Amino acid sequence: MTFTPSAVDEKAIATIRALAADVVANANSGHPGAPMGLAPLAHVLWSQFLSCDPNDSRWLNRDRFVLSNGHACALQYVMLHLLGYKVSLEDLKQFRQLDSRTPGHPEANHTDGIEVTTGPLGQGVAEAVGLAIAQRNAAATFNKDGFEVFKSHIYTIVGDGCLQEGVAYEALSLAGHLALDNLIVLYDDNHITIDGDTAVSFTEDVVARFESINFNILHVDNGDSDLAAIYDAIEKARQSTGKPTLIRVRTTIGYGSLKAGTASTHGSPLKPEDIAQFKEKNGLDPNEKFFVPEDVRELYKKVNAAGAERHAEWTKLFESYASAHADDHAEIVRRYERRLPEGWEKSLPTYKPDDAAVASRKLSETVLKKISGVLPELVGGSADLTGSNLTRWTDAVDFQPPATKLGEWTGRYIRYGVREHAMAAIMNGLHAFGLHIPTGGTFLNFVSYGIGAVRVAALSKFRVIFVATHDSIGLGEDGPTHQPIETAASLRAMPNLHFWRPADGNEVSGAYISAIRSVETPSVLALSRQNLPQLEGSTIENALRGGYVLIDNDEAAITLVATGSEVAIARDAVAKLADKGIKARLVSIPCFEVFDAQPLEYRKQVLPSGHPILSLEAYSTFGWGKYSHVHHGVNTFGKSAPAAAIYKDLGITDEAVAAKAAAVVEYYNKAGVKPISPVELEAAFE
Amino acid sequence: MTFTPSAVDEKAIATIRALAADVVANANSGHPGAPMGLAPLAHVLWSQFLSCDPNDSRWLNRDRFVLSNGHACALQYVMLHLLGYKVSLEDLKQFRQLDSRTPGHPEANHTDGIEVTTGPLGQGVAEAVGLAIAQRNAAATFNKDGFEVFKSHIYTIVGDGCLQEGVAYEALSLAGHLALDNLIVLYDDNHITIDGDTAVSFTEDVVARFESINFNILHVDNGDSDLAAIYDAIEKARQSTGKPTLIRVRTTIGYGSLKAGTASTHGSPLKPEDIAQFKEKNGLDPNEKFFVPEDVRELYKKVNAAGAERHAEWTKLFESYASAHADDHAEIVRRYERRLPEGWEKSLPTYKPDDAAVASRKLSETVLKKISGVLPELVGGSADLTGSNLTRWTDAVDFQPPATKLGEWTGRYIRYGVREHAMAAIMNGLHAFGLHIPTGGTFLNFVSYGIGAVRVAALSKFRVIFVATHDSIGLGEDGPTHQPIETAASLRAMPNLHFWRPADGNEVSGAYISAIRSVETPSVLALSRQNLPQLEGSTIENALRGGYVLIDNDEAAITLVATGSEVAIARDAVAKLADKGIKARLVSIPCFEVFDAQPLEYRKQVLPSGHPILSLEAYSTFGWGKYSHVHHGVNTFGKSAPAAAIYKDLGITDEAVAAKAAAVVEYYNKAGVKPISPVELEAAFE
Repeated sequence: MTFTPSAVDEKAIATIRALAADVVANANSGHPGAPMGLAPLAHVLWSQFLSCDPNDSRWLNRDRFVLSNGHACALQYVMLHLLGYKVSLEDLKQFRQLDSRTPGHPEANHTDGIEVTTGPLGQGVAEAVGLAIAQRNAAATFNKDGFEVFKSHIYTIVGDGCLQEGVAYEALSLAGHLALDNLIVLYDDNHITIDGDTAVSFTEDVVARFESINFNILHVDNGDSDLAAIYDAIEKARQSTGKPTLIRVRTTIGYGSLKAGTASTHGSPLKPEDIAQFKEKNGLDPNEKFFVPEDVRELYKKVNAAGAERHAEWTKLFESYASAHADDHAEIVRRYERRLPEGWEKSLPTYKPDDAAVASRKLSETVLKKISGVLPELVGGSADLTGSNLTRWTDAVDFQPPATKLGEWTGRYIRYGVREHAMAAIMNGLHAFGLHIPTGGTFLNFVSYGIGAVRVAALSKFRVIFVATHDSIGLGEDGPTHQPIETAASLRAMPNLHFWRPADGNEVSGAYISAIRSVETPSVLALSRQNLPQLEGSTIENALRGGYVLIDNDEAAITLVATGSEVAIARDAVAKLADKGIKARLVSIPCFEVFDAQPLEYRKQVLPSGHPILSLEAYSTFGWGKYSHVHHGVNTFGKSAPAAAIYKDLGITDEAVAAKAAAVVEYYNKAGVKPISPVELEAAFE
Repeated sequence: MTFTPSAVDEKAIATIRALAADVVANANSGHPGAPMGLAPLAHVLWSQFLSCDPNDSRWLNRDRFVLSNGHACALQYVMLHLLGYKVSLEDLKQFRQLDSRTPGHPEANHTDGIEVTTGPLGQGVAEAVGLAIAQRNAAATFNKDGFEVFKSHIYTIVGDGCLQEGVAYEALSLAGHLALDNLIVLYDDNHITIDGDTAVSFTEDVVARFESINFNILHVDNGDSDLAAIYDAIEKARQSTGKPTLIRVRTTIGYGSLKAGTASTHGSPLKPEDIAQFKEKNGLDPNEKFFVPEDVRELYKKVNAAGAERHAEWTKLFESYASAHADDHAEIVRRYERRLPEGWEKSLPTYKPDDAAVASRKLSETVLKKISGVLPELVGGSADLTGSNLTRWTDAVDFQPPATKLGEWTGRYIRYGVREHAMAAIMNGLHAFGLHIPTGGTFLNFVSYGIGAVRVAALSKFRVIFVATHDSIGLGEDGPTHQPIETAASLRAMPNLHFWRPADGNEVSGAYISAIRSVETPSVLALSRQNLPQLEGSTIENALRGGYVLIDNDEAAITLVATGSEVAIARDAVAKLADKGIKARLVSIPCFEVFDAQPLEYRKQVLPSGHPILSLEAYSTFGWGKYSHVHHGVNTFGKSAPAAAIYKDLGITDEAVAAKAAAVVEYYNKAGVKPISPVELEAAFE
């Protein structure tokens, strides 16, 4: 098959370019250059190839499209509008305005038809790799003879900026390793970045680099106007077997503008007279803004109808699949609706105080072993720390090309390699596909390497779960380069993210229940390398409240509040205080964010006014003012030594805490002050 | 020239392997595999090539060595010991013990002979790129006819783990672009990572990838024992012109162990019997530990003496350089001693309240323009946001290969490309070379992409300066994907890092003075996109205290404390409160960390007990408990809209703050509580 462009195709492309320029000019903010350069590619891609149903943007078997150079989103919004997604002309006029459907960069769970959040460079293409993994896995898991229920491609447009980012290289190298031939990367090769010509910083041989990471390569030498070449390349890419494809599309940034080919079209609106000359030259009325010619409308209505038809055909297929493979059908529907299997939580282990002390990373392994069978949507993995993170359940099968004999496409354990940032971004893509719950392991300290993608997960409302082991100075000998002191603060400060630091087995089980139930929130589970005792008073139910009382005392002079590995130390400090005749309470707060969501009355019971509250955590004390009046922690980098020696050296011991608590009690007694609980204070002004 | 290894070379290599195994076994923790695999390479490199003086590890013209796979540091410590650095046998026995010289991963400013901190994978090789840039720049700037004062190479050993990391790709792509032929990357190609064979995740053609990024490639097919091949490759790499070199050295992890070639030698001590068999097989006493044969000692003494001699010869050269080029000599010495030019601060601009409102990124540009001439050690740059970060001074010359005609080796402005993580790590290398003060620009939101390297800077005590513009919701239309809400918390929680958020011109000048004077501390300057008025009461001296009183009032019922763009809003709120008859004070805290270092008496004056303190900042309120009782901020992601609309929508306005302040005053009056200042409380238990 080939493609002979008609006059209306040319007009459609001119219309897209004009609309993109109008959108940006009307907002007086945004990026017209890439949209104008990419309009032909976008038109051919959507009108000829992209299998989607604009009337149902969540159709399961759609092709996925990711605009990795998210700053070019004027293009994407224009396309969504023309195709008939829920993006109106009025929405286009509200580009980059308060609470509009068309924000400055594409946001998932915000605008109809946007699969993933992009804009922070490199994220989108890595998310596309995640989508491709999910698609491949779903197809292998659910397709049956005569029932190719899952058959789609993942398309992503990337610019030079994306390709310079490390996260993109990491993800693409893994895509090549995994031989994801359902992935088509469209490289907008326009030689321009914000600083000017790519000659100033990006002169590598991109094509050779992609060859070295096992990509199939195709070229479109004139992406500005050679529609047939664009068509042929995409058509060929869709036939590729065994490798993902890079199509290098040579374009001119700001094509059609008087400043075409220069960085000045990248990030500023075109001048009115420049837009006018473009429209005039292309047979559009220079005085009309946001104008779509009738025949262009018609063209896209046909595209819309064709999508709806494809969807309808697929629905028939899926209905007969329901008859032939009722269980699989039910499973797909369940996972698509993000419903968890009835009673799955019962598989989670619980512990009694006389059970053995166990490292919380090991407790996490036990959970994964118990739930991996019950939750087939769980897809595990680690950034090359499997044996340390303990993220792999016993009978896990690796997700690998079967030809490698190292795994199967149905495999649910991903060997991410030493690629933390890509892992995090790929997990976003896995979630976005709609059928998986990704968990990924690394040391807590190296969640920071991927924080750019963690942030995207939180903003996108994506359920991804980080198994972040070796969570503090308890990591021991590896030393301060590997001991996170400040990481918790950055994660706790992030909106819509659950940072869990469980203290024992029941809290680990609770953390997993919460993380898996929180469909719109990513979770980071900070887990210990060292053994932790099972606590009297901890239960899954308690953990699920985010914070709770472990030791109560109506006559307490002080409340100690701690997390994770320090809860048991605080418990021992309470005993030491009792020896001194000081009555103390003990509170565990495994998750700030979940605790904050509890009713105020409950929170006030846990952390009441009237006596001082002292926190204990082997992290920076930064942020503890939320809950405690005085804070005990580690405000320096850690040390390289056996864990017990570091704890002692840095004063994270029951003796030190008891001594400080006694001093705090005395201080408040002397001052004659009955302090207000920070919880109560915060609530007073919400 | 070529190299014919003698029996003592073989013995030296066996000794290095045995020592490394002993070091790890004695600590019962660490990584023996890579050291045993790399011993031949290390021996040839140090004994035949590496130009250094172990008696003076800071010798200016030394070759730099970076162990990017820092977990292999048992090797590096053994080598430093044999060469005669300040690492004793006793230090080797204290490997990974509390406060030893030999921590779990190499730390700069901690162990003699360690140039940069490594261990977090990918950091070291990126730092090596920074060292290579600095070396090339210093040579171009200071070498004269007949005086090749700067002539050295940068060697770095990398493993598969480093090469999988995005930060390494980013930095190496830039190194290829910059044609840094003083950089020699020694790739430990052992096919093993923690998860097992590289076949599970890392199957790209590494050599082809390096060719694609403009590297010269050499091979050593038997790095386990072919010393002549190692020698020849390094010798050839040193002759390379116009490109950095990758030497692929095929090695066997844990060579000599019974488990050689397997992941099990990677991160766990060898068994005693395994070490014994190795020693026996290699002519060493199996019962001796930490043993160095006399002839091996002698060999390394000669290496030490040769290094001292080379240093002495260079010193003669440098003395005659002093006569011939007195000014340049003085300049080198000044920069080497990290002394700033007398009176340089006088070049900094100051502002009066009636000066125009200016964006703090623009104020920063003015500072850079003023000081770039006075501080020739300043090396600027941006991760492809030059025009937005405003990081380039008017007459700046780019650091580029002269053949590109885009700049000069003497250039002091680096086009980092869209490579934030590499930029941060390269800045660490620039600092470590010893003659430069690097500044690098990106949006504050994308400092997070490089946080792994920022952390290394803080831990290493490196003076690097981030020009982090577009610092909050004031960024406006680009939207929540680009608006940092949580980033400040992560940076403020990090030990030894100065996070500045200046409120006006004088505070910007103060921030720069502090950042440049803080030789052992990295700084992040968070700067606004939008205009900020010049404040009554702000001065450079005040800013240098980190926090100070802008509006005082002996009868105040409340203190407002704010930073950056919100200080002026808080000032207007004070006026609004006055209208309501409520007396209020105003405090600006541009830098928490610097403020915390002030005497307690001063801090208590600024934030006194006795009335409530309310904070205002357009970030997450997480962490403000340090200074305020009630906090007003942005605990959600931002929005895409013009900045003023977002401020209003999120309630960051003088009206909202005045209303909240009035409510706070009323609350405390009703409660009859005179609250203790958090500053006083914290100090009471330090």
